[in-house]
Amino acid sequence: MALLSALTPALAALLCVVIGFLFVKSKGSGVKSQAKNKDFRPWVDQDLQDNSNVLEKDDDDAEDYNEEEDIPHVPYSPPRYPEETMAMRSQDFLSLMSQRRSVRFISPEPVPREVIDNVIHTAGTAPSGAHTEPWTFVVVSDPETKHQIRLIVEEEEEVNYRKRMGDKWVQDLARLKTNWIKEYLDVAPYLILIFKQTYGILPNGKKKTHYYNEISVCISCGILLAALQNVGLVTVTSTPLNCGPQLRLLLKRPANEKLLMLLPVGYPASDATVPDLKRKPLDNIRVHI
Amino acid sequence: MALLSALTPALAALLCVVIGFLFVKSKGSGVKSQAKNKDFRPWVDQDLQDNSNVLEKDDDDAEDYNEEEDIPHVPYSPPRYPEETMAMRSQDFLSLMSQRRSVRFISPEPVPREVIDNVIHTAGTAPSGAHTEPWTFVVVSDPETKHQIRLIVEEEEEVNYRKRMGDKWVQDLARLKTNWIKEYLDVAPYLILIFKQTYGILPNGKKKTHYYNEISVCISCGILLAALQNVGLVTVTSTPLNCGPQLRLLLKRPANEKLLMLLPVGYPASDATVPDLKRKPLDNIRVHI
Repeated sequence: MALLSALTPALAALLCVVIGFLFVKSKGSGVKSQAKNKDFRPWVDQDLQDNSNVLEKDDDDAEDYNEEEDIPHVPYSPPRYPEETMAMRSQDFLSLMSQRRSVRFISPEPVPREVIDNVIHTAGTAPSGAHTEPWTFVVVSDPETKHQIRLIVEEEEEVNYRKRMGDKWVQDLARLKTNWIKEYLDVAPYLILIFKQTYGILPNGKKKTHYYNEISVCISCGILLAALQNVGLVTVTSTPLNCGPQLRLLLKRPANEKLLMLLPVGYPASDATVPDLKRKPLDNIRVHI
Repeated sequence: MALLSALTPALAALLCVVIGFLFVKSKGSGVKSQAKNKDFRPWVDQDLQDNSNVLEKDDDDAEDYNEEEDIPHVPYSPPRYPEETMAMRSQDFLSLMSQRRSVRFISPEPVPREVIDNVIHTAGTAPSGAHTEPWTFVVVSDPETKHQIRLIVEEEEEVNYRKRMGDKWVQDLARLKTNWIKEYLDVAPYLILIFKQTYGILPNGKKKTHYYNEISVCISCGILLAALQNVGLVTVTSTPLNCGPQLRLLLKRPANEKLLMLLPVGYPASDATVPDLKRKPLDNIRVHI
């Protein structure tokens, strides 16, 4: 007991440190803990979480969007094809898309700007949570800006490969002969940087929630890839680690936008090669019930 | 000091409780905390996080995939179109995709199974992190299973609308006349449930990391939407909240698969309507540098 008494001040101090640590920890994960709490109304569930920066319920800056107007419905009757035509069209599109590959060897030849515009316009037809259209496509053709992007990406990618990614990931990518040298960032006539808008800004300056913004932008990116393939252009879908903040500043994008993907776009180089990969057969990806 | 001495046992007990709480808490958020720690090698950075269930570094079940084989590269020379053809093709695809709408009124008429298979096969041409192809498409045409799905979705959706989503989200959706009654789940000839494989299973039974699995599957979904539009079929991209675990069990999918999206697919009903929404003009989604 005497020993315990002597230890009392030490115990009290330790308790303070532990409680302090707990406090700091719980502040850091505040939003996540709320989302786990059943009483908190989650925007998305655990199973279908997107990466939205969930706005906190009591956030004074959060939207007070109260537009109650009903949008009128209009008839919808798109063209309908006979069954044989449908089968043929589905087969043709399958053949087209089956030829798509991620290409890292891109020709410097110029590509008509009109085509790039149409392709991005097409990506903008994607569905989005509550029709928020939470995407910005930054098209870079200026050589100096492309080079700045390359410097940022290569510097971070080298650190990623050497330190951050882990040996297994690097091994997996080594099989594809991928490394941190990204010559295509200088060479490709266009770089398309796809930003997700994690929230919108209302006319009154308050924030507007963008539900499922990451899922929406990725779907849009899938349509973009289809549109590029349709015109014979190539790209590689890259998600450069840790470069988002620097690239956002370089491209002067606002704080609600976060870089999701970077696509170098052009014709394939005349000596372009791709790893001789096969895709899974239909029976391995489709289950019928 | 005497008072403190008397309190010593109480302080010690409190300390134990606090430490115990800390331990439980840190177990619950172990993976996330590690990812935040700068010294931990993150698979993905804060800015480009996908929803992968990141495997823990020291997880005994984690992959020890050491396949060092180099995949040979092969020449790649896809068809190249003259500039006028490219412009025309890009315009045609833009027109096709601009007609796509999310349609909740689906005809019960049968759709050729071959077309659905081709469309899913096309979705499977999407790129994926380290070519892991982390998707499973469950195609449901069995009426009883469709009805079970409807019961699960409607039950959860009613709770979502009434309690979980928050008034603002419900208001935003009310403008689109969306609610928790999902008749199309019974009516549509096909439901396509898209699962992301959060990890893979190696031949030796260990786990294989699926980098960026959610981003990859969403891109695949974008290509699926393009393929459906190309054959004149309609769908609505739904992400039913909180239904994932129940639907996974109903459809007997393994534990590494998580439901990402549910698409009812068919011809539009003859009296189908859509909200009279406009899309943002190109200048609002594209920035040129």
